[in-house]
Amino acid sequence: MSEPQGKPEEKPSEEPVLDENGKPLSKSALKKLEQKKAKADKKAQHQVAKGPEKPIAEEEDPLKCNYGEYELIQSQEISKKKWVELGSISEANVGSVVLIRARVHNVRAKGTVAFLVLRDSFHTIQAVAYPGEFISKKMIKFISGITKESIVDLEGEVTVPEQEIHSCSKKQELKIRKVFIVSKSHELLPFQLEDASRKIEKGEEDEAEDEEHVQVVEKHEEESKEGEKKNVKVSMRTRLNNRIVDLRTQSKQAIFILSSGVCQLFREFLYANQFMEIHTPKLIPGASEGGANVFKLKYFGKEACLAQSPQLYKQMCIMSDLKRVFEIGPVFRAENSFTHRHMCEFTGLDIEMVINEHYFELMDFMGELFIYIFEGIEKRYAAELKAIDHQYPFEPFVCKKPVLKLTFEEACKLLKENGVEQSVHEDFNTEIEKKLGVFVKAKYGTDFYMVHRYPVAARPFYTMVCKDDNKFTNSYDFFMRGEEITSGSQRVHDAKMLEIRAKEFGIEVETIRGYIDAFKYGAYPHGGCGIGLERVVMLYCALGNIRNASLFPRDPKRILP
Amino acid sequence: MSEPQGKPEEKPSEEPVLDENGKPLSKSALKKLEQKKAKADKKAQHQVAKGPEKPIAEEEDPLKCNYGEYELIQSQEISKKKWVELGSISEANVGSVVLIRARVHNVRAKGTVAFLVLRDSFHTIQAVAYPGEFISKKMIKFISGITKESIVDLEGEVTVPEQEIHSCSKKQELKIRKVFIVSKSHELLPFQLEDASRKIEKGEEDEAEDEEHVQVVEKHEEESKEGEKKNVKVSMRTRLNNRIVDLRTQSKQAIFILSSGVCQLFREFLYANQFMEIHTPKLIPGASEGGANVFKLKYFGKEACLAQSPQLYKQMCIMSDLKRVFEIGPVFRAENSFTHRHMCEFTGLDIEMVINEHYFELMDFMGELFIYIFEGIEKRYAAELKAIDHQYPFEPFVCKKPVLKLTFEEACKLLKENGVEQSVHEDFNTEIEKKLGVFVKAKYGTDFYMVHRYPVAARPFYTMVCKDDNKFTNSYDFFMRGEEITSGSQRVHDAKMLEIRAKEFGIEVETIRGYIDAFKYGAYPHGGCGIGLERVVMLYCALGNIRNASLFPRDPKRILP
Repeated sequence: MSEPQGKPEEKPSEEPVLDENGKPLSKSALKKLEQKKAKADKKAQHQVAKGPEKPIAEEEDPLKCNYGEYELIQSQEISKKKWVELGSISEANVGSVVLIRARVHNVRAKGTVAFLVLRDSFHTIQAVAYPGEFISKKMIKFISGITKESIVDLEGEVTVPEQEIHSCSKKQELKIRKVFIVSKSHELLPFQLEDASRKIEKGEEDEAEDEEHVQVVEKHEEESKEGEKKNVKVSMRTRLNNRIVDLRTQSKQAIFILSSGVCQLFREFLYANQFMEIHTPKLIPGASEGGANVFKLKYFGKEACLAQSPQLYKQMCIMSDLKRVFEIGPVFRAENSFTHRHMCEFTGLDIEMVINEHYFELMDFMGELFIYIFEGIEKRYAAELKAIDHQYPFEPFVCKKPVLKLTFEEACKLLKENGVEQSVHEDFNTEIEKKLGVFVKAKYGTDFYMVHRYPVAARPFYTMVCKDDNKFTNSYDFFMRGEEITSGSQRVHDAKMLEIRAKEFGIEVETIRGYIDAFKYGAYPHGGCGIGLERVVMLYCALGNIRNASLFPRDPKRILP
Repeated sequence: MSEPQGKPEEKPSEEPVLDENGKPLSKSALKKLEQKKAKADKKAQHQVAKGPEKPIAEEEDPLKCNYGEYELIQSQEISKKKWVELGSISEANVGSVVLIRARVHNVRAKGTVAFLVLRDSFHTIQAVAYPGEFISKKMIKFISGITKESIVDLEGEVTVPEQEIHSCSKKQELKIRKVFIVSKSHELLPFQLEDASRKIEKGEEDEAEDEEHVQVVEKHEEESKEGEKKNVKVSMRTRLNNRIVDLRTQSKQAIFILSSGVCQLFREFLYANQFMEIHTPKLIPGASEGGANVFKLKYFGKEACLAQSPQLYKQMCIMSDLKRVFEIGPVFRAENSFTHRHMCEFTGLDIEMVINEHYFELMDFMGELFIYIFEGIEKRYAAELKAIDHQYPFEPFVCKKPVLKLTFEEACKLLKENGVEQSVHEDFNTEIEKKLGVFVKAKYGTDFYMVHRYPVAARPFYTMVCKDDNKFTNSYDFFMRGEEITSGSQRVHDAKMLEIRAKEFGIEVETIRGYIDAFKYGAYPHGGCGIGLERVVMLYCALGNIRNASLFPRDPKRILP
């Protein structure tokens, strides 16, 4: 296997920056990039080291051992070197020499001095190279030529700069002694990180990622590029097409640390309450939530479906005496929808548990769960929230305790008080839900609340009907900032009733026979809910579009990258 | 909505016990069940309460308020009742009256006395009813007629019985005061829990669940039923077809509590080591582990695949500066295989992390992770291990510290020393792996070890080749009791090298363009591994068949229930 380093420059024309469909970028964008590239290539011929750990020029440099490019790391060595995490650098390190592996966020030469900004997730630190004991002029040149986003090993003394550094998260500065390139970035990034990090105005990304909207945005984007350079913004589509680079921005780093944190908080609370984790099959014989919107596939000659939720299986676990279960896993919906809040694959946080008497046992428990999550976010992820707010400004999320409970009828009344008509026998639509959110916030001062006792028409077949009025159900939705994040209910735990209801809903009963039969052998009353992880994150931070809360979002037009 | 309780008895002929294909049970099994049913029906006419909370007979019983059947629980009431968990009953409760909701494990009448055994997961307790202050003769009759597996609310005084109870996990006994049926079980269980709980001999379930083998077992099973009643065993197929009931057995309860615990331990260790959780898409444009064994589906007119692992996406997360990530999620393999250790869907515990120099950083970290998991299992799940051992007897799992590391060549040498020929340039087959496990155990006294530096032929395209010898790779497998549970490696982090290798492996490069391009913009050296959750649980407890460690296993013939 030959060593590939240093070669990306050799055939630039073979590597245009491609979009999702393998097409190159627009002409103007490309032209600009090519000009930049030609300039850089010329520069590179003077500067860049070619061989393994060779200095930049052929003439001897007595300090050549202090810089260069590593050969490809293939586990050829176990050195005694100790790396220090960039994020851990503090006043305590001042005066000591540290070795850091990080990304080059920025490079700048000023006279005979070179400045590097190193980045590791949230953290940035400035490093500076003056010619002197450790550094030759050739080394300065080498440093100035390092491409942005390259990974380097940098050794330097931690110092306190004379002038405070405002552009980096760390107040300390590194006086460079050694710099080696670990992995060189291609010169041409799909976009600049600073452009992908600009503030998103409220409502700017609320629109669906549909064709027309995207074209308008991209046109604007190109015009911006040609004109005022400082206002360049990158459309969501371009960012998603080059998600790897987009995810390196501070807000995205923060969003996915937060997303991981929500799962952690969710599980902490459930473990502390005697829940166990389950893994239910995603390959199932019939649709779990009715026949529409289901992905079908061939399963060794038979037809199978991708689970639209773990609903049937988590209930079967309850019937198996696993009395409190949760699952975090993918949920598949073949919805041909391009809204700001729908995806074809998302992460479901599912709960199912035995109850003794009443679905309020579920609602109150889940209310406590959400309070635990919201308070945990505030406490543990302040830095992340700040980083998100920087690009996606949002009002702090307010959750009043105890969690507000409204019946569906009460919610309808509140709507009516505010001039909005809503039948108590039909489900809310999204627009009405948003309005309700505004009225609730105004009246009760909370961004989080529960609506319960939904009309039968609004709920699936497995929902238990109210005893006192069979036009309503023992069900509930939870809302954040006027958008639904959780649906749940007491379930039907009587096999005969379940079969009758499934038939009424037009479900082919034989495809769910195993599920229905599960209730024949003694069934605990039970219920649960399913929470959309990405919606929780999106709404907590008011991100405007659910794609911002999914690492690699899927919609009807997007399955790449 | 009408009340369905009490009705299951009315049309028994419409509800035969069906197997997976909707066919009734074998004739002899059915006949037997019918006889039992007829007898039970006759009995039921005398005993079973029909209406809501009505006593068993029409004539007035002054104690009728102490027993009966609840109407269907539909959240009609929030009482002040306090239920006590069966598992929490201890000496401290002696003398007090408790209300317990649990399953009826067994019922027995002896003269005028009725005995109930209640069960909740692991725990069982005996309850006894004598005619007296709280209990009429009719109530005794009612209790004796409760079908096994029904859910009841039972109120009773906790006492210490004169004679020690050996058949229950609790030493206390409940003197019954009230009994209400919450949910009545169908009389005819697909099999008795005690039959599904009998000891499984070593090797008995090692065989694949293929047609021929199953027929032999089922024939044996029926013969057993006709003959010696005490030796009735239930075949794995019958158990899996009626998984809901099978999962109620003690060993299965324990297995899935343990399985949940393994995930919890896994995450604890990773959180403590600065890992974050990710959720990568399962709907992807191309095969992630090569073209074979992939489930394909239509994705809005395009072709898509189900991810065979999160491999490409977890690496892309590393390229996005999420430097230490893990994912627990489903993995899909369309393998037409019926072995004891393959399934078409299983739970992957995936890890990916940045390294500085050498794949030993990965191996050593993962060795520590496994030690944490094994020690955690021993410490936290002793009761569960005991319950599993009762049905699936196993030698305690031995993990020597530090974890044994053998190179592939050293492993070949060890095989040779024991008379087994193995080429250093070809992968082990399963049989050789098992032999290696025996030799390692004999020589080093450990059930857990790592083999590394696999030949190139044995590893996927994204594996980094050794610098010193390109016939080998920077890769490793981990073994438990001679079976592979984890595969991992340092990955290729150079885009050009990766593209060349993908082509060499016959992969259509354009289907993974986004993945390859991800390495162009500065790439940290990195690696990781994928662990099969069900294999870890199966092998730790020597369960013999992976289906025992999956709630609802999937193989080419099984997608139900």
